[in-house]
Amino acid sequence: MKTLFFFLLLIACVGAASAQTKQQKAQSVTDILVVMDNQVAAWNRGDIDGFMKGYWNSPKLIFVSGDNVTRGWQPTLDRYKKNYDSKEKMGKLEFREVELNILSPDAAVVLGSWHLAREKDEPHGKFTLVFRKFPEGWRIIMDHTS
Amino acid sequence: MKTLFFFLLLIACVGAASAQTKQQKAQSVTDILVVMDNQVAAWNRGDIDGFMKGYWNSPKLIFVSGDNVTRGWQPTLDRYKKNYDSKEKMGKLEFREVELNILSPDAAVVLGSWHLAREKDEPHGKFTLVFRKFPEGWRIIMDHTS
Repeated sequence: MKTLFFFLLLIACVGAASAQTKQQKAQSVTDILVVMDNQVAAWNRGDIDGFMKGYWNSPKLIFVSGDNVTRGWQPTLDRYKKNYDSKEKMGKLEFREVELNILSPDAAVVLGSWHLAREKDEPHGKFTLVFRKFPEGWRIIMDHTS
Repeated sequence: MKTLFFFLLLIACVGAASAQTKQQKAQSVTDILVVMDNQVAAWNRGDIDGFMKGYWNSPKLIFVSGDNVTRGWQPTLDRYKKNYDSKEKMGKLEFREVELNILSPDAAVVLGSWHLAREKDEPHGKFTLVFRKFPEGWRIIMDHTS
């Protein structure tokens, strides 16, 4: 009887630690979408610092755009501020066709399209975002944009 | 005494299920690098079917190149065969500056550069690969190339 109890306890706690419930996954999806929504809202009020809150504030942050790799939160912020130095250049950002894939309780990957509506053009492309969950919440650790 | 034993058992099995040992991580790194090495070897003998063995054989495979998204293993294979329909076009492939990030016991992300040495040109770019571990081994489930 004691052996059976140990065995059941073992199954229960391994199960609890390794598997994610549907509820946990749904919560992760919601939390990540909130981070991305906040990014869009920040961008559209011309607030690049606010937009950058979605990224991991670390020198290990990786931002890939075309053939260029920017490393670190500060250089990524500097790059955005250089490339989008006016409200006109920032335009109105929209994320479309967003697909989330929760890989583990603290890792996820998001595929989507970005669109900038500007007065004279409408640049757009695809992004792959790798998110990790930190004590402060979900943050992008790697962004590959094309 | 019994309570303490239960508590220690709980810690031990939660720990075993959630944390990866350094050895497990090192094994994941090795296994993923073997998959990528096999891809390069297949490509360089003109074997696109062999190259495709590194990808998840699923309609859910995602391949992003620039602004285009290809979905599914077969369409990705067809795309490669169409774009690289001769040994000359395939050239000699090299992966450089490969950085692995093991996200969990069954998920990882890889950043790297690809270079094709061909007679008349040398196309190159960056890739982000999301790997998952399946019973048959680690496979790419998402490839963003630019």
